[in-house]
Amino acid sequence: MVNVAILGFGVVGSGVAEVLDFNGAHIERKAGEPVRVKYILDVRDFPDSPFGDRVVHDFSVIENDPEVSVVVETIGGVKAALDFTRRALRAGKSVVTSNKELVAGHGRELLELAGEKGVSYLFEASVGGGIPIIRPLEQCLAANEIQEICGILNGTTNYILTRMIRAGLSFDTALKEAQQNGYAEQDPTADIEGHDACRKICILASLAFGRHICPRQVPTQGITGVTLADVAYADACGKKIKLLGRAIRQSGGRVCAYVAPHLVDGEDPLAGVEDVFNAIAVKGNAVGEVMFYGRGAGKLPTASAVVADVIDAVRRRGARRMLWAEGGEDAAVSPEGLESAWYVRAEGTAETVEAAFPGRALLPRAGAPEGEFALVTGPMAQPELEARLAGLKALSVFRVLD
Amino acid sequence: MVNVAILGFGVVGSGVAEVLDFNGAHIERKAGEPVRVKYILDVRDFPDSPFGDRVVHDFSVIENDPEVSVVVETIGGVKAALDFTRRALRAGKSVVTSNKELVAGHGRELLELAGEKGVSYLFEASVGGGIPIIRPLEQCLAANEIQEICGILNGTTNYILTRMIRAGLSFDTALKEAQQNGYAEQDPTADIEGHDACRKICILASLAFGRHICPRQVPTQGITGVTLADVAYADACGKKIKLLGRAIRQSGGRVCAYVAPHLVDGEDPLAGVEDVFNAIAVKGNAVGEVMFYGRGAGKLPTASAVVADVIDAVRRRGARRMLWAEGGEDAAVSPEGLESAWYVRAEGTAETVEAAFPGRALLPRAGAPEGEFALVTGPMAQPELEARLAGLKALSVFRVLD
Repeated sequence: MVNVAILGFGVVGSGVAEVLDFNGAHIERKAGEPVRVKYILDVRDFPDSPFGDRVVHDFSVIENDPEVSVVVETIGGVKAALDFTRRALRAGKSVVTSNKELVAGHGRELLELAGEKGVSYLFEASVGGGIPIIRPLEQCLAANEIQEICGILNGTTNYILTRMIRAGLSFDTALKEAQQNGYAEQDPTADIEGHDACRKICILASLAFGRHICPRQVPTQGITGVTLADVAYADACGKKIKLLGRAIRQSGGRVCAYVAPHLVDGEDPLAGVEDVFNAIAVKGNAVGEVMFYGRGAGKLPTASAVVADVIDAVRRRGARRMLWAEGGEDAAVSPEGLESAWYVRAEGTAETVEAAFPGRALLPRAGAPEGEFALVTGPMAQPELEARLAGLKALSVFRVLD
Repeated sequence: MVNVAILGFGVVGSGVAEVLDFNGAHIERKAGEPVRVKYILDVRDFPDSPFGDRVVHDFSVIENDPEVSVVVETIGGVKAALDFTRRALRAGKSVVTSNKELVAGHGRELLELAGEKGVSYLFEASVGGGIPIIRPLEQCLAANEIQEICGILNGTTNYILTRMIRAGLSFDTALKEAQQNGYAEQDPTADIEGHDACRKICILASLAFGRHICPRQVPTQGITGVTLADVAYADACGKKIKLLGRAIRQSGGRVCAYVAPHLVDGEDPLAGVEDVFNAIAVKGNAVGEVMFYGRGAGKLPTASAVVADVIDAVRRRGARRMLWAEGGEDAAVSPEGLESAWYVRAEGTAETVEAAFPGRALLPRAGAPEGEFALVTGPMAQPELEARLAGLKALSVFRVLD
């Protein structure tokens, strides 16, 4: 019998309790013994929940109970979650989490602590909801030097962009619709400004490249600047606008990581990823490109990933060694020097546009105001682009994915 | 230092040696110690290969060398491969393989033998080439009761179908082109008749449902009956023809598994999987649908998956417990009773077609001969379909994927 404590009985935490319950027999076969929820830590009480009798309000009850071998942290944020995770690991308990903010910001410290204590710190659910990505990246692609990770990592923004592209909704209308459908929070900042995608690409990059890449090192641009005019111009050249998190291996083991909207070719598998779905493409030097696809959020998908980690922690009865070795300020480099084609929408005259981007075809758009031009440049790095844009008033500038 | 022996120095075997060599430093970090190829077993000699000095012709050299802890079996087929795998496992060595024929036919016995000996029998490379699917299915989705697996499991047939759809090539011309490009064998039977896809769906179904599903239990139809007329009719209703392997959970823990061409809706992510790429969609009762995508074959992608298993065998130093419990004749059930819509192309008169499928719209095709009709039926099981087809001359009959 394995005893689990769930910290935080919100959407994901209650989903974990439900999955452990309704798939109990199956999970027992996989884990080799029954897995039971012994405690639920929350500030609230849940008298109407079938798990209500297990609620405690004091973490030290869990910390001091030697019967609890796995702690599920689904509190979110970094205050209580960080404190309880440290204390659980120090008490020799494995910790499983869906908390991307905590993993992105403190993953290195917590993995080291778990290693010292001979227990596991597992976070499959922190990226891509139920999509298996952390373990495949760490284990199945272990024979590869990873060259690049590129993904649609945030379902809320992908839903908004899909509705702008498919239904012609403005950003504001699409955001409201996402909120009404429960796909966006009342305060949508973390999603629409790209912070959520940033945390996730940091976790993936840290795992893939073995260095702790921190969110503050990663330039992040959300989708609030994407307009229906941009959607139309992208369509005119057979492309779709997607918010991508990217991490690319550079010489010297450094990593170029950033989050930004991109124009993606209609034939690219990422272009077909719609609504709240996520997809993560990984390039390795032996495997070539592989892609993982599914619902990137939601109660049961995310709980599915948490419970898989619980089963893994039980099966191993010891640390899963993860490599997340060096960190430091120099681990990440700016994408400034990264060459790509660029989509540019700008105000100017035919002459200034031709002078800035000689010979580039202009993209058509029905109803475009006079003096608006849009084009796709040849490959160049950011400084060259900025120099060329000097004589124009740039309205939208996005990279074009190769 | 871990010593590995490679059995069979063909495309995949030599790829494994190459990946262990060019990613050696990276693999050492992942495995925790250097991994070296000590022996290569082959009937041939390779005087010009950098690995030529490690070639042996007698398996007992490997079998009796206690320094060899992992054996890579890339011989293929079931004769020597089965004998050597049994002997390696009995000698207490873990075995890693890309041999889908052996795993599909003898996986249960070999997993049991590995379990008895406390070593691993690993076969990530047997399905989907370098695409991580075996480990995700077994570990990452462990919290789920799997409901269905549906995949494009054979790159050769997907290439042929893509060329028929995209370039209007006939089946014969597309097959010849695939052979010229090295995507099809000179004897293409195993691919085009669906046997290869059948082995792979058997492996996935056995893992997902915990029962050994054997190829002879799985009705298998290849793509030799797919014509350009079918491609055109499918296009007329927004669908693409894909060869799918499917395994669906039935009541009582039984599994309905089969391989056949299907009409797939153009919006389905599987429809966008082209050329030699593979994709495997998995439905679980918690995670919903997830999909795995990438190159399903090729020297380095497949070697990437083999080497990942080698690293896993090294890290664990013991058995990876896999559940593949019960087998027997009753594990698989026929898809006869499985309801679906059907695509039917038949010869008949307008009256006989209307009598057989009242009210169904006929699909258009430019240049269709007189007396040819095509339509998509409502949902029904196979016996009902066959009864309705009695008065017509059926030319092509494929299921339509839901």
